[in-house]
Amino acid sequence: MTAALLTDKYELTMLAAALRDGTAARRTTFELFARRLPDGRRYGVVAGTGRFLEALADFTFDDADLASLSDFLDDRTLSYLSDYRFRGDVDGYAEGELYFPGSPVLSVHGTFGECVILETLALSIFNHDTAIASAAARMASVADGRTLIEMGSRRTHEHAAVAAARAAYIAGFTGTSNLEAQRRYGVPAMGTSAHAFTLLHVSANGPTDDPEASKTSEWEKAAFRAQVDALGVGTTLLVDTYDITTGVANAVEVAGPELGAVRIDSGDLGVLARQVRLQLDKLGATKTRIVVSGDLDEYAIAGLRAEPVDSYGVGTSVVTGSGAPTASMVYKLVEVDGMPVEKRSLRKESHGGRKKALRLAKPSGTIVEEVVYPAAGPVGESDHLVARELTVPLVINGEVVADDDLEKARQRVVDGLHSLPWDGLKLSHGEPVIPTRMIPPAHRGA
Amino acid sequence: MTAALLTDKYELTMLAAALRDGTAARRTTFELFARRLPDGRRYGVVAGTGRFLEALADFTFDDADLASLSDFLDDRTLSYLSDYRFRGDVDGYAEGELYFPGSPVLSVHGTFGECVILETLALSIFNHDTAIASAAARMASVADGRTLIEMGSRRTHEHAAVAAARAAYIAGFTGTSNLEAQRRYGVPAMGTSAHAFTLLHVSANGPTDDPEASKTSEWEKAAFRAQVDALGVGTTLLVDTYDITTGVANAVEVAGPELGAVRIDSGDLGVLARQVRLQLDKLGATKTRIVVSGDLDEYAIAGLRAEPVDSYGVGTSVVTGSGAPTASMVYKLVEVDGMPVEKRSLRKESHGGRKKALRLAKPSGTIVEEVVYPAAGPVGESDHLVARELTVPLVINGEVVADDDLEKARQRVVDGLHSLPWDGLKLSHGEPVIPTRMIPPAHRGA
Repeated sequence: MTAALLTDKYELTMLAAALRDGTAARRTTFELFARRLPDGRRYGVVAGTGRFLEALADFTFDDADLASLSDFLDDRTLSYLSDYRFRGDVDGYAEGELYFPGSPVLSVHGTFGECVILETLALSIFNHDTAIASAAARMASVADGRTLIEMGSRRTHEHAAVAAARAAYIAGFTGTSNLEAQRRYGVPAMGTSAHAFTLLHVSANGPTDDPEASKTSEWEKAAFRAQVDALGVGTTLLVDTYDITTGVANAVEVAGPELGAVRIDSGDLGVLARQVRLQLDKLGATKTRIVVSGDLDEYAIAGLRAEPVDSYGVGTSVVTGSGAPTASMVYKLVEVDGMPVEKRSLRKESHGGRKKALRLAKPSGTIVEEVVYPAAGPVGESDHLVARELTVPLVINGEVVADDDLEKARQRVVDGLHSLPWDGLKLSHGEPVIPTRMIPPAHRGA
Repeated sequence: MTAALLTDKYELTMLAAALRDGTAARRTTFELFARRLPDGRRYGVVAGTGRFLEALADFTFDDADLASLSDFLDDRTLSYLSDYRFRGDVDGYAEGELYFPGSPVLSVHGTFGECVILETLALSIFNHDTAIASAAARMASVADGRTLIEMGSRRTHEHAAVAAARAAYIAGFTGTSNLEAQRRYGVPAMGTSAHAFTLLHVSANGPTDDPEASKTSEWEKAAFRAQVDALGVGTTLLVDTYDITTGVANAVEVAGPELGAVRIDSGDLGVLARQVRLQLDKLGATKTRIVVSGDLDEYAIAGLRAEPVDSYGVGTSVVTGSGAPTASMVYKLVEVDGMPVEKRSLRKESHGGRKKALRLAKPSGTIVEEVVYPAAGPVGESDHLVARELTVPLVINGEVVADDDLEKARQRVVDGLHSLPWDGLKLSHGEPVIPTRMIPPAHRGA
């Protein structure tokens, strides 16, 4: 399947109308940006760039695509689409960069025809991936070096799950439960065990005069034995299926003190982690790690900072953007044949014209301002501040020139978080931590 | 690509351990259900059934899949997966049925090995699609027969968008902007035009002594002319790019009074709809419809009920589940070799054993109770009430027997909404509108 139909119908009808009156060939710039950060956030993290550049190559119309469009498009438009591939330029922020309101995250340059039909695909990818990465970076920041496992595949669309694992990894997660994310993007896949595996080892043949508790304990040990036999003592045993204290005792009895980890998936995780740590230490399993999971978000992770937790498994909150499931980015026409254009409307003021951006920092590295300026210059002066250019070439004449190295993107997030003023890392609702200064385009012909 | 790697790693390591100790062959039932409705909702709408049954056929492991798993799975497990296809039974709620806390939406029966590895795929599909349908049904209910267009593709993952269009259609939306949803599922694709198309018609060659307003008016008319030439007067013109009153006048001037519709995408939609209706009527365009869009959700739609709005375009809120982007369904092992099993844990009490469900209604059709009972019976009596069986066969011996007719699913939603007590349609936060009665399994061997 091509990516071509992951598109809103109106893009193709606009193309048809523009081909008819000749405006499809006008040179345009479309800009992808967010007017605001997700509610109460102090910074955002750009993600999706690599996926967008990959999808661009698949954005061609095959015969089956064209057949499905033939009932509402004329022959000229169908012919245009059959030859379509993007041959323009794209520049923008490297994946993993921070962004702020008005940051020109992506600029797409080419004819109106070739740029307009990328709107939905570009927005879908950036709105999704950026929402996940922006939430995940907050979690990574408060996890403060502890292991963070993304395990939310089951809480989001099955293909969104793969992209979510990738975005969370960029933002600082250690790995994912999702196998396709490992295959496609090299995100480390990690896993433990489910309650189902323990429950599977139920038996009708326990000693019938035993109390219920000792029966379930025997079943649990049978499950642990099977898991250790198959996966070795380095595995993670899930200890809260029946009784957690018995579960920990059973885990160490079966695996020995070299047991890799135990997972706790329910109850007051802080209290339980402390109890389990004491119990493990008493049993000599001093190296056995504690993994916690169950409705964790950045606030819960922060709340567990003082507890003996080694790894966090995070599901729903990361794949749904922790309250902000979409990044509200828009894709707007800002320039036509060198003329800046913009919609006139209250409260949706945007600035026309092709733009670039740089970020100003103190010599210490702490950032102070995002400057968005006309691509044709000038930028203006910035005494005593260090300016870093944010806009880099991503595609030139239809050829991708950006790297797709996830490790570099991860490093950009780390660097970005280090560059924030202290207020930037606060979890509470707030304003963007640095202002964006928009330098309007010089008045030209239009 | 197969669907096999849209899976959490631990499912396959559990399989490996269960193959090793022989428990993979035990006969099991897994149940997919929600412990609660999304926050404050009074009912939920099941969606995803058709997509899950379709994905089941793609859930096989090809050589590339197996190669990517060979670093952590043993030969026996890889061999099992290479022969894998689901050969068990599935029953559950038909797509489009309402559901409540504890409703056994899906029951999967087969060996532990064949059932356990479907967990992530099943949950991803149902959690996503059900969240969308449950939000969309509220919007359809308050839209009260007016046209509802799903146009949120750009606000969610590009493939989630296709599933969201399908789920919204099941729940009562009229159509979608998404072309792939039309091709794949037959959801009617609809479209208007974007501000970019109007802005594209900027010109440096306007009469230079004209005030700005009349220049933009000329550009707008050029855009409208191009659209009407290409798409006919039945098209929808977007009138709020520059000035809305001028936009409406231009639209009727260019297209004539037979113009299909105008769209308003910003401002106070109620006030503007009234003004535009008056203006259109004065211009003789009495049949021209008014489409509104821009951050609409069920509350905004309800707020516009008294206004002369003909169609709503809904984006972000529907594809993100209007505050509840996931349905929090779980997939739990409930029966092993005929023995009911369940995790013992505070506040996560579930009832073991294979189950079915029926819904009780008054003779008038108004529903009063969901009854979840052991599949082996008995059900108990229900005097003066009409019982409707909810659990139907979906897959028998690996063969899909359920229909995948979206129109039937749509009708089930309509019927379901009609069957609700009046409180059920209130938009305010509330409790599930009917209680769920769980009849526990009779005590057996375990």
